[in-house]
Amino acid sequence: MNIPKSSYPRIVIIGGGFAGIALAKKLSNKEVQVVLLDKHNYHTFQPLLYQVSTGGLEPDSIAYPIRKILKDYPNFFFRLAEVQQVVYADKTLITNIGTLHFDYLVLATGSETNFFGNTELQKNSMAMKTIPQSLNLRSLILENFEQALLTDEYHERDALMNFVIVGGGPTGVELAGALAEIKKGILPKDYPDLDTRRVQINLIQSGDRILKEMSEKASQKAEDFLESLGVQIWKNVRVTHYDGKTVSTKSDVTFESATLVWAAGVKAASIKGLDAEDLLTAGNRMKVNEFNQVEGLEGVFAIGDVACMQTEDSPRGHAMMAQPAMQQGRHLGDNLLRFLENKPMRPFAYKDKGSMATVGRNKAVVDMKNMHFQGIFAWFVWMFVHLFFLIGFRNRMVVFVNWVYNYIRFDREARLIIRPYQRDYSQFKEEDK
Amino acid sequence: MNIPKSSYPRIVIIGGGFAGIALAKKLSNKEVQVVLLDKHNYHTFQPLLYQVSTGGLEPDSIAYPIRKILKDYPNFFFRLAEVQQVVYADKTLITNIGTLHFDYLVLATGSETNFFGNTELQKNSMAMKTIPQSLNLRSLILENFEQALLTDEYHERDALMNFVIVGGGPTGVELAGALAEIKKGILPKDYPDLDTRRVQINLIQSGDRILKEMSEKASQKAEDFLESLGVQIWKNVRVTHYDGKTVSTKSDVTFESATLVWAAGVKAASIKGLDAEDLLTAGNRMKVNEFNQVEGLEGVFAIGDVACMQTEDSPRGHAMMAQPAMQQGRHLGDNLLRFLENKPMRPFAYKDKGSMATVGRNKAVVDMKNMHFQGIFAWFVWMFVHLFFLIGFRNRMVVFVNWVYNYIRFDREARLIIRPYQRDYSQFKEEDK
Repeated sequence: MNIPKSSYPRIVIIGGGFAGIALAKKLSNKEVQVVLLDKHNYHTFQPLLYQVSTGGLEPDSIAYPIRKILKDYPNFFFRLAEVQQVVYADKTLITNIGTLHFDYLVLATGSETNFFGNTELQKNSMAMKTIPQSLNLRSLILENFEQALLTDEYHERDALMNFVIVGGGPTGVELAGALAEIKKGILPKDYPDLDTRRVQINLIQSGDRILKEMSEKASQKAEDFLESLGVQIWKNVRVTHYDGKTVSTKSDVTFESATLVWAAGVKAASIKGLDAEDLLTAGNRMKVNEFNQVEGLEGVFAIGDVACMQTEDSPRGHAMMAQPAMQQGRHLGDNLLRFLENKPMRPFAYKDKGSMATVGRNKAVVDMKNMHFQGIFAWFVWMFVHLFFLIGFRNRMVVFVNWVYNYIRFDREARLIIRPYQRDYSQFKEEDK
Repeated sequence: MNIPKSSYPRIVIIGGGFAGIALAKKLSNKEVQVVLLDKHNYHTFQPLLYQVSTGGLEPDSIAYPIRKILKDYPNFFFRLAEVQQVVYADKTLITNIGTLHFDYLVLATGSETNFFGNTELQKNSMAMKTIPQSLNLRSLILENFEQALLTDEYHERDALMNFVIVGGGPTGVELAGALAEIKKGILPKDYPDLDTRRVQINLIQSGDRILKEMSEKASQKAEDFLESLGVQIWKNVRVTHYDGKTVSTKSDVTFESATLVWAAGVKAASIKGLDAEDLLTAGNRMKVNEFNQVEGLEGVFAIGDVACMQTEDSPRGHAMMAQPAMQQGRHLGDNLLRFLENKPMRPFAYKDKGSMATVGRNKAVVDMKNMHFQGIFAWFVWMFVHLFFLIGFRNRMVVFVNWVYNYIRFDREARLIIRPYQRDYSQFKEEDK
């Protein structure tokens, strides 16, 4: 790979998510050479992906070119690359665009959807971890309704208008809420020749409450909100099979549905060469010490979702969310600079700023250290926080314009099938034969 | 196709572009049943596609869901469908979602890129008539620069940074201008390790002036503007071959380039069953009389790009642009209603409101009936007119925010490779072997 030689030590960061970007910013204009690798040329603001899927936002407003984030730092190099392997013994990365030597390596590869080895589910269901995936889901949702117009068989039509979301975490809850609002505000007008009251939104949770990382009060209130919007919540139900048409579960509940969204689990995106069993913990996360160092591999660090720092407060590592990722990124930046100055590194301490989820118009739940609140104020807090953390002034403005418009007009105008998701609908026509 | 029977006559419109939408709006809430078919579920504002390609706008802000445009009209039906054939004898359409009977048929299928039978060119070059095509071009432009970073061979790198635009009409001129601004404002910051002064933008025109539909003054000024931005203009040059690497011409000029954008011609999008030679004129446009009737086929009309109404003022039909399309759509709407009331139809008369093109920041050319002006005022007029004709308040707001931002910051933030355009770059590596 064409990276100029430098007299400064080279720190290679794999991944331009919340953790990688926070770290890179800390290292700007310091006496280090920073190489950031990512397979996309943009940073994705993942918390708003569900709004892309449901036509509320354009994809470009939650993405931000990585080169622009760091364009004023002469010690910074970005390469659009996929890392294939780490050869630790040679301190070298093998990528699709060549090899690269590192002095220090930081894994910030984030996480990917976890189907727990169920290949049938993986093949037939939709994930929502990247912008292309979210756009595929957007296309599929709209295509289902276009398809529903083509049949008089009401079983077929119901299956096309039945949405099954597996996973009651923030992603599942927010998507279910957004779909419920579309059902109410948009579908009856867009599809006057369909009986859109028959649209079903099913949210399936394996445990006994949704938003289980949040307070019980928040879980309860989120359930109330969702139910008031007409979402059916299925607790203690575990999905086992989905052939593209029938969703089977461990219980006797089944669903006929053209759309299963899998939001029931993530695993760390591990890299060949650093995936030895003794380096990993549950969900492929890499064990790190309190300085985010991968134990046993000097000069290798991991931050964000891919890192598992087992502490007393979080014996299974920190939550795989933006806040710990950003804090670890910033903290590791300071630590690396201290280390290079031969000062002792400082242990990471997570500052829990709380968590939140939105269910829909005027409906959100917020947990803060000593405060839990729900409803319209929580919803405004949710919006403000998301606008604040979104990178880029233009993105904030465009998202703000969209939100104000959507709020006033009860609308979501980005319901566009720009690239069709070419689903095979033949399963839904069997009865016709 | 599942369209309810109606006691009203059924008018089927093929195409939701400027002409089709203008017609459908005129027929709203009248005693007709209107079925609009389009292969996309959105209307595309084609004049701004080049801004999507160059990262200035998000695709969603120049698209508008067709269902929403016409959602309040109970006599209106939209179907996402591709028309495969018209069987005039049966007054029936064959589409990918079934057949449909019509009482009246209006072709508003618009136009598509014309490669004049040169399949090599068609295979290797980029077109810019649809949103997916524009996004492909956006991805390719950005991927070229990422690719240019991977080589030390300066021939290769130059070819990757050499853009050849064929066609000196508004599309070619506007794209060339936008690329020139990217070269100046964005590339040096985004790619500090490339010598972006070597980026070339070549605009090739087969005739002896660009913007040949406009006044000579406008052509001259547009050339001056482009040259001041560093665009190389090649007049009286005809491209004959492009193998993906070398652009050959009838003259002895050749270019080594990874990107050829073909904006040198369009042809009407004709439909099987209505493509008999005697129905068509140059560029596959359908001959229509002054009422937009296809001669010899009672009840069949054509409007917009696909129609060729030969008049004294426009012996080769009206320009294939938004204005004639919208005017013909509205006019045909009135005429159809008159016809159904047994009133005589009125001949179409085109009101030329002028034409315009923008070259870049503060640089545009405007021709109006008795007025030609260029420069910053023309540029403001261009922006105002485009915002005005854009469909949808949200789209206008988002485009406005982007333009203000881009203007103040000399920036284009949507430089995102959301779906990579998987170009084969192996041709550019031959020298390495």
